[in-house]
Amino acid sequence: MKKLSVVKVGGKIVENEDSLLRFLKEFSRIEGYKILVHGGGRSATALSERLGVESQIVDGRRITDKATLEIVTMVYGGLVNKNIVAQLQALDVNSLGLMGADLNIILAEKRKVQDIDYGYVGDIVSVNNRVFIELLEKGIVPVLAPLTHNKSGDILNTNADTIAAEVGQSLSSDYEVTLIYCFEKKGVLLDEEDENSVIPVLDRKYFDELVSLGVVKEGMLPKLQNAFSSIEKGVNKVIIREALSVSKESEGTVIK
Amino acid sequence: MKKLSVVKVGGKIVENEDSLLRFLKEFSRIEGYKILVHGGGRSATALSERLGVESQIVDGRRITDKATLEIVTMVYGGLVNKNIVAQLQALDVNSLGLMGADLNIILAEKRKVQDIDYGYVGDIVSVNNRVFIELLEKGIVPVLAPLTHNKSGDILNTNADTIAAEVGQSLSSDYEVTLIYCFEKKGVLLDEEDENSVIPVLDRKYFDELVSLGVVKEGMLPKLQNAFSSIEKGVNKVIIREALSVSKESEGTVIK
Repeated sequence: MKKLSVVKVGGKIVENEDSLLRFLKEFSRIEGYKILVHGGGRSATALSERLGVESQIVDGRRITDKATLEIVTMVYGGLVNKNIVAQLQALDVNSLGLMGADLNIILAEKRKVQDIDYGYVGDIVSVNNRVFIELLEKGIVPVLAPLTHNKSGDILNTNADTIAAEVGQSLSSDYEVTLIYCFEKKGVLLDEEDENSVIPVLDRKYFDELVSLGVVKEGMLPKLQNAFSSIEKGVNKVIIREALSVSKESEGTVIK
Repeated sequence: MKKLSVVKVGGKIVENEDSLLRFLKEFSRIEGYKILVHGGGRSATALSERLGVESQIVDGRRITDKATLEIVTMVYGGLVNKNIVAQLQALDVNSLGLMGADLNIILAEKRKVQDIDYGYVGDIVSVNNRVFIELLEKGIVPVLAPLTHNKSGDILNTNADTIAAEVGQSLSSDYEVTLIYCFEKKGVLLDEEDENSVIPVLDRKYFDELVSLGVVKEGMLPKLQNAFSSIEKGVNKVIIREALSVSKESEGTVIK
């Protein structure tokens, strides 16, 4: 099977002009088919503050009322997405910025209200493999903003990690998928204080051990649980690594 | 030759939820290949005001400094464009939101500084016909935000009327192009006060006469000059008409 890299890059990297450019140069060197999924939460929060719109975040998820939906549509779908596309074109990467409604590429449904009403937040229903495959086979690099739609006219806010995972899982029927989560650190660290304590390989057994020892906690816990879940759903491997070295073969933490 | 409608719709229509939906329903009924180009200047001005960024407009053109570029990228490329795409998908129109950098579809250069430095404003260099044709032949409806790029990483602000005209002219080598400018009025009026004084057909001779009589002036003058220029450059006809009746055959002013 042909290889596909689905790369997710977070806000800290893409919201700084300098690190964004350095990251995109690295990204442009990744061989084979690739898809980029970006965040942008910090810029959305900053714009919300400037506009006096309150940002409510519960368990790492943004509560998306109408005013916040407008802000994330502007920041994720406009500012961050189009800036990445323009920079990639300058690097001769034939990129195409997309959110879920474009070509109906990711269909979602508004999250049901249980304890919390998350507002305009979408849970993914289906990924349009046929369209992704057509784009990839033409040498196009899709750049996905963390926004979906419900095909009833509503734009929905959807976590970028989740989009990367669901797209990777869905396309694993057609490609050998590597899901790459990029961030500022070199990988999953044994010792948070020691940048060089990267765990090179993590399987489910070792992970359970690290959780019970309290080594893996907080933000990293759901990330790794999602990683294992993606592998169970067909993704070949998940790599957690530093954004600015993403084109290099042998760094970061490999989850399998 | 196959028929292509390039429809430009202005800010007043797209920035009101109600009129946008009514317009898009009309737009969805247009038969044959179609491209939608939208404005959004009023929303950009409103956001600029909320953010305390001064909007400078000289001769109807926005001076685009770095802060303004961020605003128009958010509003045109994000808010307005993605909202239109999501609404069209709800109407079963397979739309794709694009700005010039996406698939390198419209290449521009930063306007040279002469009397006025317009900042990040782009004059179109070339339209990527091959990509447009591929999209149209797949039944995709491109929705174009009034933003271009210079392939050196800069996003550039470009007038929506100009984008519609240049895209229409360029694609007239492959399609029989009708360029449709939609606005609130029924067409070019003989008497500004009388909504029913629409001029049904306008040729160059009649236009020159109306200009010398002072009937055509101000905002309509450059619009009509551009219309005649588009016809000289291959567009089959230009129609100036009411947005909310755009799917109907025989209304508005036809320029040929």
